[in-house]
Amino acid sequence: MPNETVTQTILKAKGTLIEWVEDEVVREVPLTIHYNGEEIATLLCSPSQTEELVYGFLLNEGFIRVPEDVYKIRHDPADHLAWIDGKPCVLQKELMSKRFVSACCGKSRASFCFANDVLMVKPLISTHSIPLQEAYGYVKFLQSNSTLFYSTGGVHSGGVGHQGKILLTSYDIGRHNVFDKLSGSAFHTGLNLENHVIFFSGRVSSEILLKVAKMKVPILIARGAPTDMALSQAAALNITVIGFAREQRLNIYTCTDRIIP
Amino acid sequence: MPNETVTQTILKAKGTLIEWVEDEVVREVPLTIHYNGEEIATLLCSPSQTEELVYGFLLNEGFIRVPEDVYKIRHDPADHLAWIDGKPCVLQKELMSKRFVSACCGKSRASFCFANDVLMVKPLISTHSIPLQEAYGYVKFLQSNSTLFYSTGGVHSGGVGHQGKILLTSYDIGRHNVFDKLSGSAFHTGLNLENHVIFFSGRVSSEILLKVAKMKVPILIARGAPTDMALSQAAALNITVIGFAREQRLNIYTCTDRIIP
Repeated sequence: MPNETVTQTILKAKGTLIEWVEDEVVREVPLTIHYNGEEIATLLCSPSQTEELVYGFLLNEGFIRVPEDVYKIRHDPADHLAWIDGKPCVLQKELMSKRFVSACCGKSRASFCFANDVLMVKPLISTHSIPLQEAYGYVKFLQSNSTLFYSTGGVHSGGVGHQGKILLTSYDIGRHNVFDKLSGSAFHTGLNLENHVIFFSGRVSSEILLKVAKMKVPILIARGAPTDMALSQAAALNITVIGFAREQRLNIYTCTDRIIP
Repeated sequence: MPNETVTQTILKAKGTLIEWVEDEVVREVPLTIHYNGEEIATLLCSPSQTEELVYGFLLNEGFIRVPEDVYKIRHDPADHLAWIDGKPCVLQKELMSKRFVSACCGKSRASFCFANDVLMVKPLISTHSIPLQEAYGYVKFLQSNSTLFYSTGGVHSGGVGHQGKILLTSYDIGRHNVFDKLSGSAFHTGLNLENHVIFFSGRVSSEILLKVAKMKVPILIARGAPTDMALSQAAALNITVIGFAREQRLNIYTCTDRIIP
């Protein structure tokens, strides 16, 4: 992946020994997305799977719903600008990060903080279950295939699996972008994720959980820890959350029936 | 920290053995900030140092500049709403995440992506330097004092040091919030950070680097990796970035003169 990292001369210290060495640094670029001529967001991201990222972002933010909603996509790798012509959308830009106060604080078990999420997220009805060994298998893949992660320490990675097979992968300097790229890949290729598993190198906050819900994936396996808000949303949305996943060890937090010992 | 975590019953798997256990889960809450009556943002954060977080956010986003700019702050821990009355601000909410396209892409070495940052960030003139052993000391503190991190795996932590002493600390589920809390603490107590060091458990992306620049801290020590964009900004802003920091090992990427072997 020559374009994903740059080589830089740095000072490396080990104890009191200190020396100049060549080292790899992971790249970060700004990607500005325009929808029907309007600038809607600038994402800071890794320069890979850019179209997938655009599709996934538009999908998860509610601008598009089906492939036919996108009429044209243009992306210039030189200036990191993406222009999408698509169906006029119901959701307003102003709602994107507007807190939905009334539903957020307390009463119901599911606490959704943002207005768009309340409109877009529904409990999953999937009864998909997987053997515990299949879960371990995805974690093993995650550990052994995160080459960019291990060479630079700088990116998160994730993937989508089904019956032990890896169907999609992505990585990015931003946790959220990993999910948007997977979402965009599935959307672009018409893959229905309802009976699939998503695995991820990072932590599970509420924002990550809601992305999984929007992708309609019933099982999330993460190497990192989940937050309590993510878990209460997962319980309400019928999503299985697995955290602290290692090759032979993991914690199942919600909807535990989906994992067969 | 009884309020920072909740206890939950989960299924723990180790190999083929699987059992119910009580485990700690880190809390995440939405904090909605209103400035002069207008809702400006909802942050998802750890429920600690909330006023510091509010101060730091307003400071780093350019709403306030000196303590006198804040007339009144009210924060209700029950509904996670914060109301700040302060000086009418120059920066507009619309600029907050608006990409500053012309300066961003290529020409100059310093690539600033957001309009507000271009207005707010200036190269540091500090000639502060520290012995390598002082740097190792902060990393040691970070490793040995991240109790919430180690018990739940769920938060990032950071701190501010001067001549080997730890002056401020913070932690949060969100990387950015760690810096806003430190920034708000320093602002609130009138601490000038120009000859100080900031240390942090996470990765250094451009957003993190710009927060450090706004805090006017000349030296950043991180356990994680930096991105190329963060490093080019650091070079242009005269900030020393240290990454992959461990107790007896670290990489110095920029402005290396500030570290004395």
